[in-house]
Amino acid sequence: MLHDNLKINEKGHLTFAELDTIELAKEYGTPLMLIDENRIRERMRLYKKAMKNFSDSSMPLFASKALCFKEIYRIAKEEEIGIDVVSSGELYTAVSVEFPMEKVFFHGNNKTDEDIKFAIENNIGYFVADNFEELSKINELASRKGVVQKVIIRLTPGIDPHTHASISTGKVDSKFGVAIETGQADEIVKFALTLENVKLVGFHCHIGSQIFEVEPFLMTVNTMVEYVFKVKKEFNTEIEILDIGGGFACRYVESDGFIDYEKNLKEIATLIKNKVLESGIKMPTIFIEPGRSMVADSGLTLYTVGSIKEIKNVKNYVSIDGGMTDNPRYALYQSSYTVVNATRADKKADYVCSVAGRCCESGDLIQENVKLARPVRDDILAVLCTGAYNYSMASNYNRIPRPPIVMVKDGKSRIVVKRESFDDIIKNEV
Amino acid sequence: MLHDNLKINEKGHLTFAELDTIELAKEYGTPLMLIDENRIRERMRLYKKAMKNFSDSSMPLFASKALCFKEIYRIAKEEEIGIDVVSSGELYTAVSVEFPMEKVFFHGNNKTDEDIKFAIENNIGYFVADNFEELSKINELASRKGVVQKVIIRLTPGIDPHTHASISTGKVDSKFGVAIETGQADEIVKFALTLENVKLVGFHCHIGSQIFEVEPFLMTVNTMVEYVFKVKKEFNTEIEILDIGGGFACRYVESDGFIDYEKNLKEIATLIKNKVLESGIKMPTIFIEPGRSMVADSGLTLYTVGSIKEIKNVKNYVSIDGGMTDNPRYALYQSSYTVVNATRADKKADYVCSVAGRCCESGDLIQENVKLARPVRDDILAVLCTGAYNYSMASNYNRIPRPPIVMVKDGKSRIVVKRESFDDIIKNEV
Repeated sequence: MLHDNLKINEKGHLTFAELDTIELAKEYGTPLMLIDENRIRERMRLYKKAMKNFSDSSMPLFASKALCFKEIYRIAKEEEIGIDVVSSGELYTAVSVEFPMEKVFFHGNNKTDEDIKFAIENNIGYFVADNFEELSKINELASRKGVVQKVIIRLTPGIDPHTHASISTGKVDSKFGVAIETGQADEIVKFALTLENVKLVGFHCHIGSQIFEVEPFLMTVNTMVEYVFKVKKEFNTEIEILDIGGGFACRYVESDGFIDYEKNLKEIATLIKNKVLESGIKMPTIFIEPGRSMVADSGLTLYTVGSIKEIKNVKNYVSIDGGMTDNPRYALYQSSYTVVNATRADKKADYVCSVAGRCCESGDLIQENVKLARPVRDDILAVLCTGAYNYSMASNYNRIPRPPIVMVKDGKSRIVVKRESFDDIIKNEV
Repeated sequence: MLHDNLKINEKGHLTFAELDTIELAKEYGTPLMLIDENRIRERMRLYKKAMKNFSDSSMPLFASKALCFKEIYRIAKEEEIGIDVVSSGELYTAVSVEFPMEKVFFHGNNKTDEDIKFAIENNIGYFVADNFEELSKINELASRKGVVQKVIIRLTPGIDPHTHASISTGKVDSKFGVAIETGQADEIVKFALTLENVKLVGFHCHIGSQIFEVEPFLMTVNTMVEYVFKVKKEFNTEIEILDIGGGFACRYVESDGFIDYEKNLKEIATLIKNKVLESGIKMPTIFIEPGRSMVADSGLTLYTVGSIKEIKNVKNYVSIDGGMTDNPRYALYQSSYTVVNATRADKKADYVCSVAGRCCESGDLIQENVKLARPVRDDILAVLCTGAYNYSMASNYNRIPRPPIVMVKDGKSRIVVKRESFDDIIKNEV
């Protein structure tokens, strides 16, 4: 099994965090998103502990965009980690559960005036400023409120992590941040230092997502520490914070390796500490921003099979009652997923097929050429590792309601996000 | 200008259906989706009239998946055309405005038991049955209600329309329908004819989307009429309905040609009539299903510019306050769009840039390498031809609320879909 919270019970059903997935499908209906709460908490603790390798004040920030709803923020709050948000909507959700605002970082390549205003009103910890226009606006609105706003600046370190182009963000050609190598980073630092209601406290970078190797991170850290040193030397400013972003991969299919997050972070910490010592700068507080790797493999989606179409000499299609509406990642990036016939998890998986969604669109596939125990209508399929960028990217295309999220913990299950209704969908329509 | 409802007024602003887009952006905020009601009605009338070339009972069905909300169904109802739906959600919306059910066709590769039940309860006109499992279930549930349900069967004619793979659906390798050339179509016809509570009344096919040439349609119609003849001969069953699907392209950019829908439909009608005459079958009622071409060029989206990032020797990025959340078509298919600086529509469009969305994702772009009148923060950009597959595919990724839809008609504007609120987004969360 791909992850250690997956087993097969005496009925031949797939279990997830000790619960029978077929029973859960019966109780809550399908499509159904399950989240293993203990696994998320363990991952948060692992990251929190590993960050102590950097310094006592160093901390992981959960990248909300991967999976955002009220309960996930309550969990992050209880585990005493920080979060990053990329919109007023995410911030609003965090505010609604009284998440401690001093641990919130506001990201994004384009914060609107309303975003900035809303965040300052809520005493947000940090803005991760992306560009000149934003910095000016933050200064203006902070001044209007009579506060000095802590800001870190997003830099592009010029690292290509060899991941999918849509999720690679560290290259100079990026809509995000300001490039070090073009000299434009110096310009924005100079500008920030002139602003009265902005306090420049650090730098941020993020090189991409689903990165399996530690080398791109080591290169990044090297570049970033050198830049902190440059800023000390040339602008006489000691930086307190270095936020090195997220991007650690997680295991979607058997051919993906196991990733030792703890070991990787230790390596990065050693490099940073040596580099800092060598440069003669003060050791900054380090933040990282795991999103996917904190939640992806804690999630699983259950679907009901509708039809099995065997096209002679061509292909078999197994159609399910969800698809690109709850998981658009295959349509967007041809992402890999593992699919299991949860009803017949003890049977040999030797039926080769493409798993198709129910949307009226050929590109609506969950995965091509997977092997399943041969299904029939009403079997339950489980798609593994759907905790990140599934619910958060879900749509109502074809007016399909978004599935509920059920959290499982210690052999019990509970709804944390209710299934959307048709009335929810037409609610704003005149 | 790309379409004839776009002009430039004395202030240098872009106007849409005679209204100043800058004023509309001020009044309703951005992102903002505008729909030109008269243009949609004209297109519906054009299609309705053109269908009379086939026969008096022939009719266009609006393919709801392109753009679905209550008001669009009210308009279709007033214009006395039919619709196709692909889910209970779309059907629910149509029911909510009392759309005449005898003119509704229920599509999709995977109708759930609940879909079939809901549709039969609402006396839906036709199911477009996709597979054996569905036919059985329709028969079972129709029998339980004591009705005989009219059904047409979706066939794959084996036509490759050379469009984007994600929107090509007529090939034998498709999750949709049953292939003629493998002989599997014969099997499903035989099966349908054995079912007591199902009345097989016709066939359907759909070869894909955004098709500019008429040839693929002519080939399709040829194949379909031949199959109708075969069914008459071999199964002694005269088919009443031939639904030849949609797929007519529309003009997104200047390099796209103008499409003469009327002329194309006349050509298809001539071919069908000759072919029918030649075959000695009864002339069937013809349905077509324009979705995109009925609404795309009646839509336009307005955004506010946030930052202009000029990366030395690389690229210029102009970031806007929407993106893949309200228009995922570039992220999904690298679709072409025309972008105009609506604030400076009278100025030369010579600033080359990529227009980036605000999502925390590199792939969140609206278009690369467009030419705009050089923008500054707070300028309004208009993205043209966004009436189809924008609102319907919109998501809350990054918890960004979906924009409102404002309909303009005869110099007046009105909200038909309200802007989503943050409370809407967290509404189902515990």
